[in-house]
Amino acid sequence: MNILVAQSGGPTAAINASLAGVIKAGLESDKIDQIYGGMNGIQGIIEDHIMLLNSIFEDEKNLAKLKITPAMYLGSCRYKLKTPNQDPSDFDAILAAFKKYEIGAFFYIGGNDSMDTVEKLADYTKEQNIDVKIVGVPKTVDNDLMQIDHTPGFGSAARYVATTVREIAMDTYIYNMDTVVIVEIMGRDAGWLTASSALARFDGSVAPHLIYLPEVEFDMESFLQAVKRKLFKYHHVIVAVSEGVKTADGEYLSSDHEKVDKFGHTALAGTGTMLQDLIKDRIGCKVRSVELNVCQRAAGHCTSETDLSESMQLGKNGVKYALDGMSGVMASIFRTSDAPYSVEYGPADIHGIANAAKPVPREWISEDGTDVTDGMIQYLKPLVLGDPDVPYADGLPDYIIRNK
Amino acid sequence: MNILVAQSGGPTAAINASLAGVIKAGLESDKIDQIYGGMNGIQGIIEDHIMLLNSIFEDEKNLAKLKITPAMYLGSCRYKLKTPNQDPSDFDAILAAFKKYEIGAFFYIGGNDSMDTVEKLADYTKEQNIDVKIVGVPKTVDNDLMQIDHTPGFGSAARYVATTVREIAMDTYIYNMDTVVIVEIMGRDAGWLTASSALARFDGSVAPHLIYLPEVEFDMESFLQAVKRKLFKYHHVIVAVSEGVKTADGEYLSSDHEKVDKFGHTALAGTGTMLQDLIKDRIGCKVRSVELNVCQRAAGHCTSETDLSESMQLGKNGVKYALDGMSGVMASIFRTSDAPYSVEYGPADIHGIANAAKPVPREWISEDGTDVTDGMIQYLKPLVLGDPDVPYADGLPDYIIRNK
Repeated sequence: MNILVAQSGGPTAAINASLAGVIKAGLESDKIDQIYGGMNGIQGIIEDHIMLLNSIFEDEKNLAKLKITPAMYLGSCRYKLKTPNQDPSDFDAILAAFKKYEIGAFFYIGGNDSMDTVEKLADYTKEQNIDVKIVGVPKTVDNDLMQIDHTPGFGSAARYVATTVREIAMDTYIYNMDTVVIVEIMGRDAGWLTASSALARFDGSVAPHLIYLPEVEFDMESFLQAVKRKLFKYHHVIVAVSEGVKTADGEYLSSDHEKVDKFGHTALAGTGTMLQDLIKDRIGCKVRSVELNVCQRAAGHCTSETDLSESMQLGKNGVKYALDGMSGVMASIFRTSDAPYSVEYGPADIHGIANAAKPVPREWISEDGTDVTDGMIQYLKPLVLGDPDVPYADGLPDYIIRNK
Repeated sequence: MNILVAQSGGPTAAINASLAGVIKAGLESDKIDQIYGGMNGIQGIIEDHIMLLNSIFEDEKNLAKLKITPAMYLGSCRYKLKTPNQDPSDFDAILAAFKKYEIGAFFYIGGNDSMDTVEKLADYTKEQNIDVKIVGVPKTVDNDLMQIDHTPGFGSAARYVATTVREIAMDTYIYNMDTVVIVEIMGRDAGWLTASSALARFDGSVAPHLIYLPEVEFDMESFLQAVKRKLFKYHHVIVAVSEGVKTADGEYLSSDHEKVDKFGHTALAGTGTMLQDLIKDRIGCKVRSVELNVCQRAAGHCTSETDLSESMQLGKNGVKYALDGMSGVMASIFRTSDAPYSVEYGPADIHGIANAAKPVPREWISEDGTDVTDGMIQYLKPLVLGDPDVPYADGLPDYIIRNK
């Protein structure tokens, strides 16, 4: 049989490692002939933008490059799939592509919205007795997917965030002058990535001194008091804050900059800048705001080998599940121990993944809501370990890019 | 004899490599007994905040950590030294410290302003027949010092900028949608660091599509036309822009956000945001602005081994020059060939370094002012080469920090 794979949602540094896993398993299986890639997610499949992947990635060098290349080799989309009840044209086009390319299994690598697509497609093909296995392969830097211990892409982003917060602290310590630096970190609804900044601490440096997650209501006066206390004690205060922190009325701190995307998500900007201006106004010390921006999800030069290997393994496992006859599952990972770190892999039922999100549990946030607990640190630690074998050319990571 | 070393100015990822060089040469020389470090630059020497460095760095592991630790182990200052004519108290305090600690040579690691201090101190000690050798060791991410081929810290910052611009491009390519990303890069007066973004290009990716340096007058209408032309051809346009670009009237683009520091420099913020808003208003496509901020000068996890080794060598050479009886010199580096890359080291007269800056030569900027030439690429290429042997602990760079 032939297989089809596509990628969707926002970029991470590990989503191509999962693609590499699907391709490698496909190349190695004698049950699989052609490996097709849908360009720009489900939209490319609907519009018949489909490419053959076998020959490119039979070259081991290209597969090694793919594993460490950030973002999506096949491109992405933010397309909201029309359900058959609303308008059958999208599903008809997808099934037509399955037929045309003789597809026996379809792998969709993505986050929450992509797992929604996997669920709908799996239910529909089952209903219609169409023998195409539909399997989800997870990813998201936000780490907020259900039915999985941690998501591919998160460990690498966490390593980048912790490394960069440590370096921002080193940069801040040099002057004998009260200074606050606000580091704004991704995470609209869940604070996992902001929490990972706690790994920046090391012998002699307690930065970040304060950590604010969206799971805890944000109060401006308590924030100002906490900053003043830390300034008095340390003189240099690094604050890690999630872009998604909200005040008691449920509004984002940056709510006057709101934008809504096609999925109804509120796009944020300016939480860091807002807090910077607040400190300037109310405390008056030197203050700077640093937004880690897209760098934190695209830093292929600072990934975690644990993350990349697991991401690749999840791609391979997806293929295995399809060959074993499963459909409507997501390749998942379950932790059996923090230290020594060990995991088990297995399929998770796709139902109950898509329309829920996993917040940071309250017991992993300190009582006063300005730090994380040791439980969180133990959870995070193994995820940022290991230096991948990045191929370099002329001193820069040698990524692979699709000819356009 | 004893020696004294201090660091000053803005951080780079290589300024501690130079400190490691001074310390290593000091430990290895049988003419040198104690190695003292002045904390927070010349200000620490004036205020007698001085520490002994020998025992800490006789441990090779600590010296290896120091080499790769960004920013300043000894701290920095932005202190404007009072000249003896104005007020002799500063010079009196410095000479008192030299006497108290029996200092035979003083090494000041820093940029333009620090070389000004070296010049004044060297002239004064000579005038007064005081036998303390005064030697400058250069550093600046801006690469705009005179009498040197390239400055310590620049190669590492250039490697980080090129890597990050490449990754921002990967992040941008994934959607089928006209998109502009403005990347704002450090460089108030000189465009060297912004120019280094050109190294981001690789097979299949021409990003950055446009490069704007402060050496060329910035015209908003030409900029909008250039962006439109690139959008039409490529659909995704990455613009690398120096924070210091100026319009025809000599004003910074971000001139309504001006602040002046103690040295009379104008501190900038907002060039990227300003251009983002311009594009939103006049072109209307998806647009994002990314400010690389302090990360570009503090990224110890993404340094160039060429830069770190040369920086260390310049520290060692400074000690050698002092032992050879020189004073009023800066340890310098001269290029003898681009490919294969080769350099020679030597002392440069401190006079004529401090109050001048080296701009990017016009012939290394394309005629239309929106790109750099091949000459610039050949100059930049060797500076970003090599992966330093960074010690990691728990997945993060294992930096060394001074107990405070």
